[in-house]
Amino acid sequence: MQKEFEKLYIYGKHALSEALLNYPRAVKKVFFSPRIHDLELRNLVRKAGATLQELKEREAEKMVGYEAAHQGIVAIVDSAGLMIDFDDFFRELKTTPETMLVLLDELTDPHNVGAIIRSAAAFGASGILMPYHNQAPITGAVVKASAGMAFRVPLVSIGNVNYTIGKLKNEGFRTYGLIMEGSRAVTEEKFEEPTLFIVGNEGKGIREKTLDLCDVKLRIPMNPRCESLNVSVSAAVVLFEWSKHHGAALRKNK
Amino acid sequence: MQKEFEKLYIYGKHALSEALLNYPRAVKKVFFSPRIHDLELRNLVRKAGATLQELKEREAEKMVGYEAAHQGIVAIVDSAGLMIDFDDFFRELKTTPETMLVLLDELTDPHNVGAIIRSAAAFGASGILMPYHNQAPITGAVVKASAGMAFRVPLVSIGNVNYTIGKLKNEGFRTYGLIMEGSRAVTEEKFEEPTLFIVGNEGKGIREKTLDLCDVKLRIPMNPRCESLNVSVSAAVVLFEWSKHHGAALRKNK
Repeated sequence: MQKEFEKLYIYGKHALSEALLNYPRAVKKVFFSPRIHDLELRNLVRKAGATLQELKEREAEKMVGYEAAHQGIVAIVDSAGLMIDFDDFFRELKTTPETMLVLLDELTDPHNVGAIIRSAAAFGASGILMPYHNQAPITGAVVKASAGMAFRVPLVSIGNVNYTIGKLKNEGFRTYGLIMEGSRAVTEEKFEEPTLFIVGNEGKGIREKTLDLCDVKLRIPMNPRCESLNVSVSAAVVLFEWSKHHGAALRKNK
Repeated sequence: MQKEFEKLYIYGKHALSEALLNYPRAVKKVFFSPRIHDLELRNLVRKAGATLQELKEREAEKMVGYEAAHQGIVAIVDSAGLMIDFDDFFRELKTTPETMLVLLDELTDPHNVGAIIRSAAAFGASGILMPYHNQAPITGAVVKASAGMAFRVPLVSIGNVNYTIGKLKNEGFRTYGLIMEGSRAVTEEKFEEPTLFIVGNEGKGIREKTLDLCDVKLRIPMNPRCESLNVSVSAAVVLFEWSKHHGAALRKNK
């Protein structure tokens, strides 16, 4: 399938060192401000064969914007190597009862996407599935919010959300839609089968047809005075609950 | 104690309606863009006795900045009524084993502060303690990130963090510092006593002297490939675990 790729500007020490450790060949150019004297990081840049340049004043802001806390470190990454196509991912995936995937259904806030990637790495997800369309793409802000974990968990491009869910259900995945009015509390669930969690858009939640496909509509028990949780918080709580039933997933390495 | 107060600009529908429902007298002025036809909200504004004005083009940005998703709704709130002094709060507090407080130790990111307030409301906290100094104050961004919950959970001003912890310990609170290298997993804890959770700064964590005062250093079991979680995610997971032992706190109303 033909796809368009863009240069990805990443920033901050964590993001760069994770990129260099996990996708060294994707890192094309690194900019350090003169005040960066991190020998270990410089060594990683050299090993990766990336070009090292001086970050001139105001240059960082042009590349990553005024909001970015770049700490004097910016890099250009070829994002082509970062996203895996679903078919390729699926072919390699060894599904066991310890396998857990997270599907992001049209999230728009890069902080939420990054935070969910970070929690997914922490609690043992085997991959994050993201639609091509209507979904916040992987940007420097996402990578930063993920604390570099975007380079450690496989990020998987999917086309049609409902088609993908159907395919995973056929392979024995039990699918859980996270929804405030879910009929089943996350605390009642044992998660004994391969698991797919579906996280909906910040405002609109999971789309109706997608929700219809879910085996379980999962809720987090909470005080009725509070209508909802932040979407990255909901995701973290559910992933944490899952992880308690899967100690092995907390120990495995990539 | 003499304190300085500032006008608080809040924005968005959720934030305004929570302010009007919970602190009607604090809402001084409300600005609606001409496209807002929400009768229920207009009714609340009238009942609160707040002045209603038209939000003119570009005016919102001057008040709340370009980053704010204000949805055509901005209001000026007298923040004097929003924070409670610790002594006043403590005098009224009926401490039981169901009482849980969260202390923010110099957090700087308004999104984290807001998200923690939202989770605290969801999982039954009786109050959020925040130092006067070196701590992100309650701003429109905090209120927005809290989805208006900043108006539902008591927000308590404290002076010295360590003095406050000592006082609560004397009253029978068990204090838990959230820290990656904690000696005790949150899943092992029963939370049978009144509980104080201490959440540290995003970068530096909990200060050493404060950590020394904690009865328990609490960690969240996670995959060793991930060094840490976002601070608002850590807080949510721990509050959620606490809430599972305290069904009553999930049902009580303010």
